[in-house]
Amino acid sequence: MIPDKPLRRGVPKLATPMDRRVLLQMSGSAIVAAALPVRGWAQADPLPSWNDGEAKRKIIEFVERVTTPGEAGFAPPAERIATFDNDGTLWSEQPAYFQLLFVLDQIRDLAPQHPEWKTKQPFASALKGDMKTVMAGGARSIAPLLAATHTGMTTEEFSRRVGAWIETARHPATGKLYTEMAYQPMLELLAYFRANGFKTFIVSGGGVEFMRVFAERVYGIAPEQIIGTSGKLKFEIREGKPVMVKLPELFFFDDKEAKPVAIQQQIGRRPLAAFGNSDGDLAMLQWTAAGGGERLPVFIRHTDSVREWAYDRQSKIGKLDKGLDEAAASGWLVVSMKDDWKRIFAFEK
Amino acid sequence: MIPDKPLRRGVPKLATPMDRRVLLQMSGSAIVAAALPVRGWAQADPLPSWNDGEAKRKIIEFVERVTTPGEAGFAPPAERIATFDNDGTLWSEQPAYFQLLFVLDQIRDLAPQHPEWKTKQPFASALKGDMKTVMAGGARSIAPLLAATHTGMTTEEFSRRVGAWIETARHPATGKLYTEMAYQPMLELLAYFRANGFKTFIVSGGGVEFMRVFAERVYGIAPEQIIGTSGKLKFEIREGKPVMVKLPELFFFDDKEAKPVAIQQQIGRRPLAAFGNSDGDLAMLQWTAAGGGERLPVFIRHTDSVREWAYDRQSKIGKLDKGLDEAAASGWLVVSMKDDWKRIFAFEK
Repeated sequence: MIPDKPLRRGVPKLATPMDRRVLLQMSGSAIVAAALPVRGWAQADPLPSWNDGEAKRKIIEFVERVTTPGEAGFAPPAERIATFDNDGTLWSEQPAYFQLLFVLDQIRDLAPQHPEWKTKQPFASALKGDMKTVMAGGARSIAPLLAATHTGMTTEEFSRRVGAWIETARHPATGKLYTEMAYQPMLELLAYFRANGFKTFIVSGGGVEFMRVFAERVYGIAPEQIIGTSGKLKFEIREGKPVMVKLPELFFFDDKEAKPVAIQQQIGRRPLAAFGNSDGDLAMLQWTAAGGGERLPVFIRHTDSVREWAYDRQSKIGKLDKGLDEAAASGWLVVSMKDDWKRIFAFEK
Repeated sequence: MIPDKPLRRGVPKLATPMDRRVLLQMSGSAIVAAALPVRGWAQADPLPSWNDGEAKRKIIEFVERVTTPGEAGFAPPAERIATFDNDGTLWSEQPAYFQLLFVLDQIRDLAPQHPEWKTKQPFASALKGDMKTVMAGGARSIAPLLAATHTGMTTEEFSRRVGAWIETARHPATGKLYTEMAYQPMLELLAYFRANGFKTFIVSGGGVEFMRVFAERVYGIAPEQIIGTSGKLKFEIREGKPVMVKLPELFFFDDKEAKPVAIQQQIGRRPLAAFGNSDGDLAMLQWTAAGGGERLPVFIRHTDSVREWAYDRQSKIGKLDKGLDEAAASGWLVVSMKDDWKRIFAFEK
């Protein structure tokens, strides 16, 4: 994920020994470290899929300011925390959250063991692929589907199911693997932040056990840096062996005001940068912005109806309404996928 | 924290480029990296406060096995997770959990604003320093004291209070700062694990917001790697500024079976090594041991009535009873503070 394109513009300085060391740590071996000059080292464009413009410039300037000793906004590496929403921020969320599409696929797979589902709602609609009816029922309709597919098994069994699905299931509109629908500009941004000493965290309304199956491989984000919605777990000894069972009870719903709460509970440090795409991320961006000093709260705006989807204030999924108002009032960066991203997915030519 | 004593014994190999890089990252600068030979590099004794014996040998052999490529127990750095209980494992817990001593000190500090406390239990006993009566009341007695000292303020205000206390308050028996009562052998062990690519986590029944104030400075463990008991938080906007308020409601009590649950919820990976000192840590050690392959579940046993305290099966604080039985049955390492530790506290001569 370290960019190797030729020098373009906005070259980020790697100003401190710590920055260099962090990059060295990523770069493959101690031999490489020994061969690198200590000063005057220019780096290729770290964000090649971003168009040159205000968004890219502001992001790079932020990173330079917090990593340059002596700058007013300088932050030691331990304080370099960046948080990212997942659905709609790191990968797509249309025509439905991908985790819901996993649920529907699982319901179909499990149906032969549950003949009663053919006539029982919401299972009957789910089996017909009638997402409109399922979604119209809201949480009350989705809860039984979640319970049937996300609970009653051990965490290991659940991970196996998600793993099998994510390796083979295809997106209904693009025909791509879901992991291919991660946003290339955001993958570059994650790597760029980490190369500058940031710890990158996911803070998502999605299920934490769901995301952990692929997030390390796709985003380079380790399980312990993923915060999400979770169900209660039960530790029990089965035939002398401890297992962790997923219970049909919500433990934490990581959305809206719960996002900064989860950040405080689990990270214990206020982010320097936070990226979201919906009103569900507004509180996280507010909490980030209010930290004082150099902060980067960012909304990713879905403006590209050709390469991705275009939606914001009126959307049922990923509604961005109050967030747009507050971003305008507070001068937060709003990234336009259409205008600021050279390409959205790696599979584009 | 990198040991600089002369070579003694049990020299750990730094076998892989990744190991070396992780150590380089800790060692100060890229210049140092460039100057170090890539092979044949011997390291000083990483555990100088441990007596040469079975405990030290088993720990070092474990670390060598999981970090040596080709060994059956080899684990890539991402999987090197080690979890540590805090009270009684990283620092003392007698004559009472230090956080409870903080509570009593806070009650005294706040008493002038609460004249009613003089006659109201459990505050009256707490103000008289009558811990026996307070403790005898159990959770029902302690809860109002916790609520009065741990809730109703913002997280920032609470951190300030803990910070002021931890810098000045003295232990009733030793007269030392509480942070001086961290176990020197465990500080060495934490550094040794990290130098070998491990991520070290605290998983404690203590309050997470309490521990985070000093754990980074004392243990080298960052806030995001601390898991503990926590109260509910409320995100709210006060005069246009977001704040996080500590509510008088328990969110998560991190003890016994809840420890492996919290590990799964927040880390999402099973530890390779886990250290505890009481039956409250038993489930965490069971979960660790059951992972298969090379695992290191360890009890620290309080056996030194002269330099520290001696207690186990009959103790009200830090009771270690079932844990001793299971350690014996399963062949887990039990560290004797009296026999295995050359010194317990750094302030010993």
